[in-house]
Amino acid sequence: MELGMIGLGRMGGNMAERLRRGGHTVIGYDRDPKISDVGSMEELVQRLPKPRAVWVMVPAGEPTRQTVHSLGEILEPGDVIVDGGNSHYLDDRRHAEELAAKGIGFVDVGVSGGVWGLQNGYALMVGGDDAHVKQLMPIFESLKPEGEYGFVHSGPAGAGHFAKMVHNGIEYGMMQAFAEGYELLKASDVVHNVPETFRSWQEGTVIQSWLLELLNRALEEDPNLERIRGRADDSGEGRWTVQAAVDHAVPLPAISASLFARFASRQDDSPAMKVVAALRKQFGGHPVEPVA
Amino acid sequence: MELGMIGLGRMGGNMAERLRRGGHTVIGYDRDPKISDVGSMEELVQRLPKPRAVWVMVPAGEPTRQTVHSLGEILEPGDVIVDGGNSHYLDDRRHAEELAAKGIGFVDVGVSGGVWGLQNGYALMVGGDDAHVKQLMPIFESLKPEGEYGFVHSGPAGAGHFAKMVHNGIEYGMMQAFAEGYELLKASDVVHNVPETFRSWQEGTVIQSWLLELLNRALEEDPNLERIRGRADDSGEGRWTVQAAVDHAVPLPAISASLFARFASRQDDSPAMKVVAALRKQFGGHPVEPVA
Amino acid sequence: MELGMIGLGRMGGNMAERLRRGGHTVIGYDRDPKISDVGSMEELVQRLPKPRAVWVMVPAGEPTRQTVHSLGEILEPGDVIVDGGNSHYLDDRRHAEELAAKGIGFVDVGVSGGVWGLQNGYALMVGGDDAHVKQLMPIFESLKPEGEYGFVHSGPAGAGHFAKMVHNGIEYGMMQAFAEGYELLKASDVVHNVPETFRSWQEGTVIQSWLLELLNRALEEDPNLERIRGRADDSGEGRWTVQAAVDHAVPLPAISASLFARFASRQDDSPAMKVVAALRKQFGGHPVEPVA
Amino acid sequence: MELGMIGLGRMGGNMAERLRRGGHTVIGYDRDPKISDVGSMEELVQRLPKPRAVWVMVPAGEPTRQTVHSLGEILEPGDVIVDGGNSHYLDDRRHAEELAAKGIGFVDVGVSGGVWGLQNGYALMVGGDDAHVKQLMPIFESLKPEGEYGFVHSGPAGAGHFAKMVHNGIEYGMMQAFAEGYELLKASDVVHNVPETFRSWQEGTVIQSWLLELLNRALEEDPNLERIRGRADDSGEGRWTVQAAVDHAVPLPAISASLFARFASRQDDSPAMKVVAALRKQFGGHPVEPVA
Repeated sequence: MELGMIGLGRMGGNMAERLRRGGHTVIGYDRDPKISDVGSMEELVQRLPKPRAVWVMVPAGEPTRQTVHSLGEILEPGDVIVDGGNSHYLDDRRHAEELAAKGIGFVDVGVSGGVWGLQNGYALMVGGDDAHVKQLMPIFESLKPEGEYGFVHSGPAGAGHFAKMVHNGIEYGMMQAFAEGYELLKASDVVHNVPETFRSWQEGTVIQSWLLELLNRALEEDPNLERIRGRADDSGEGRWTVQAAVDHAVPLPAISASLFARFASRQDDSPAMKVVAALRKQFGGHPVEPVA
Repeated sequence: MELGMIGLGRMGGNMAERLRRGGHTVIGYDRDPKISDVGSMEELVQRLPKPRAVWVMVPAGEPTRQTVHSLGEILEPGDVIVDGGNSHYLDDRRHAEELAAKGIGFVDVGVSGGVWGLQNGYALMVGGDDAHVKQLMPIFESLKPEGEYGFVHSGPAGAGHFAKMVHNGIEYGMMQAFAEGYELLKASDVVHNVPETFRSWQEGTVIQSWLLELLNRALEEDPNLERIRGRADDSGEGRWTVQAAVDHAVPLPAISASLFARFASRQDDSPAMKVVAALRKQFGGHPVEPVA
Repeated sequence: MELGMIGLGRMGGNMAERLRRGGHTVIGYDRDPKISDVGSMEELVQRLPKPRAVWVMVPAGEPTRQTVHSLGEILEPGDVIVDGGNSHYLDDRRHAEELAAKGIGFVDVGVSGGVWGLQNGYALMVGGDDAHVKQLMPIFESLKPEGEYGFVHSGPAGAGHFAKMVHNGIEYGMMQAFAEGYELLKASDVVHNVPETFRSWQEGTVIQSWLLELLNRALEEDPNLERIRGRADDSGEGRWTVQAAVDHAVPLPAISASLFARFASRQDDSPAMKVVAALRKQFGGHPVEPVA
Repeated sequence: MELGMIGLGRMGGNMAERLRRGGHTVIGYDRDPKISDVGSMEELVQRLPKPRAVWVMVPAGEPTRQTVHSLGEILEPGDVIVDGGNSHYLDDRRHAEELAAKGIGFVDVGVSGGVWGLQNGYALMVGGDDAHVKQLMPIFESLKPEGEYGFVHSGPAGAGHFAKMVHNGIEYGMMQAFAEGYELLKASDVVHNVPETFRSWQEGTVIQSWLLELLNRALEEDPNLERIRGRADDSGEGRWTVQAAVDHAVPLPAISASLFARFASRQDDSPAMKVVAALRKQFGGHPVEPVA
């Protein structure tokens, strides 16, 4: 089918490419005229057959909100907008409601796959009305991995990004579990062959997983991870997971610990630990380390 | 080769079976005469050709310590004892030292595989001297999964069980990550198709793993997990992981959170939360719930 | 001075009483006509001398937002509204901005003191412009405890409730620390005199505190806390503390653990632990406990 | 009464001083001849009247174990040894048993008070038999703070150090709570007067405590804690608390988080976070920061 794609960065560009390989016609718009197929969103809309389908793949937050809003101004009843970015599920609900008032459909899609998606397919978690999801199924079929997995219609608008958010929260916890295990193995003098030990776990163990394969790939390149600083960013979805859990009174100790470990990893000095050091000095006369 | 196997319970029995399928001769001893091949450990030792190899597969702790000690009394220099149970790595070090004084070898093996091992092979993490490990390689080859993974000689005595302990710690963290994600999905009203969502994640996602497959199997049998109480035991290795981390000054927030969640799940009432409720009543006049 | 007080519940009523004892004239309005001095907010406003000061002490959230909005409609330039409830600091910022456009002042006050405040004074954390805070100082002087502590002008609008929110977050962590220590003492068979041990800590220790005194009071009434269920509510400010920390990339492991422990304490069964139990059954054949 | 004191360092020396002020005769022995009253432990024992009481105040672990053992060789039935150091409660049990076989008493005392104890008294948590504790009461009366608190006979041998261990665990949690609150206040731009805010909390709040006073003292000296590095040691008892909790299946999330935060604060780079960064690079192409 024909699809408009707004945002042709790393993710959007690769997805457009996978769709074209799947036989679809993708008209792309990007702020960068060198990679854009059209000069404006208006032109993109004009060139699509009705009912139109436009996939928004721009940075989450204000850019996505503005793009969805602008599209809502120029699309027509029966058209449908897909938000394939990393939006917050509450944004989706607002977008769906606002667009529904104009007769325009809205579908949110949580996309997993990163740099591997072009080749292996993207896992898709979809939220929206049945009719709109059905309308887009040819697109989803081409983007998803082959086989019976990798696609789910999780519920109404917001459900796609909520599911993706939770997926990422689980991912934080799993990564932290491997990270803690690695540090313990390295800190002890017991296991001499740490990379070989991780490598062996790829078969026959309870922890065999894609993340373990990736960790082994990393350890093959750099067996002591000497070339990597122990600093990890977080992309927003881990934060939303913790905040959604707090909103819903769900205990989330391991995933929140994973998020906090990333926060701490980026600090050059810890204000909290200054307090602990200061208190130890006050009550016990324990020496403190001066700031260099 | 020929191997003595002490302990023919679920694990020991299956491992003996897999070894026999692999062409080895296994003489088994068990306290239960109905499943034992010999009447005593002494008889087992007499029937094995020198240098003997005896695999101990009895419950960890005192039973294993006593069995290793008793074997040490009746084996001869050049023989080797394998502890395939879930022993603490510090026990291994003591055993290796004591037996070395008698010229008897000691190898510790962390075994993963559970109920799936007979069919798929057992992942083996091995600690001990090179010579002893080499002596046992035919056995390890038959027990391990096919392919290049599933076996590692991690280091000297203790390294096998230490590696297995850390493996289990990672497993605790991964399971907790899935568990927290599941609870958040269920607690929100956003995602309507929770089992379908988990199922879809088996392809194209960052969290694809054997644990996810097992969770999907469980959700297929009981889509809302209505027939399972939210109580989880712990088998000891999670505890040792946390304690080893504390000994080595390694932060282990996610894995310890996983362990504590299991502890809490088994409490009918929480003494700690009694204190919190009592304090809230004292300073704020907040009502407390009487014990029924 | 003269003050309007809206909301004469437990907190508002006691604060009005303390102010009257301090020589102020308080005109109170409550939805309950039996305890209200006036028939309406309009009447309350008419009876106050200009420039008026009106203290809002109604439940946080929608009730406070509506009351502040309504007051904004009937007050005049130069008047000032005080929000003494448990509002979110972002609400304060909106209120200050909206009211400033009308020339009306806004001051937010975080109030600590609970059932003890009438007698001992209320600790006040204040946010707002210097001029408005100055205008209200006679009120603050009467409400606060005697001595040099118990009052702070923390910053602009929102700072009072933010400071109170963090105070409560700290309180969560401190309560949890006592709670965990208590549970460990009870779980071990080492210390036989748990209440006596807590009681002794009131002098000469690092943990001497008002919370410890309250805990000892509770243990005097009920030495084994047998009459209290281990279930603890949370009042919202603990949640906001964790969410604000996530927003600011601040690691908050102990305070978030305290919040999660309360969440878990209120569950009859844990969906997360169902997953852990289900997974243990799948990979290890470990028995699960059926739901009764 | 007369007391032998072994170990005249900061703690032992101050305690001897407080006892002398209380009218007792203290004969001190220290490895450093300049501060020792006697030339050897043997001489100390000879100079004490029977039944003798000897207080051991040397570093925990091997030094204490050796000193208690040596004293056990030269003391006589009816004498009593006090271990006032920071020993593990399981050491106490062994010492009590070994000495009881010789008719020598053993009492373990957890001591709190630090640099403030000489002036204000030391909080004492005592484990041992009633008869031995009674024998030492004149000493305890002089060491403890005035008033009704600051002394408890918590149970049999080991109970004193167990109680002190839990006290320190609670202390870890409380310090961490203040530390996290401080960091959140500093990280936000909402509260402008952080030291003033903490100072105000000393009266009328739920978190008023000695630790808060100490923190305010520290903030008075250095309002932004600019001269203190955010690195905090741990003294062993926090570790034992977590390990004892794991042994007893007690969830200890906040106290363990406090301990782990200290561990992390002392790392120049985090091996765990290297893994997280490496994994993010592998699956998402996220950039990693090279080691400088």
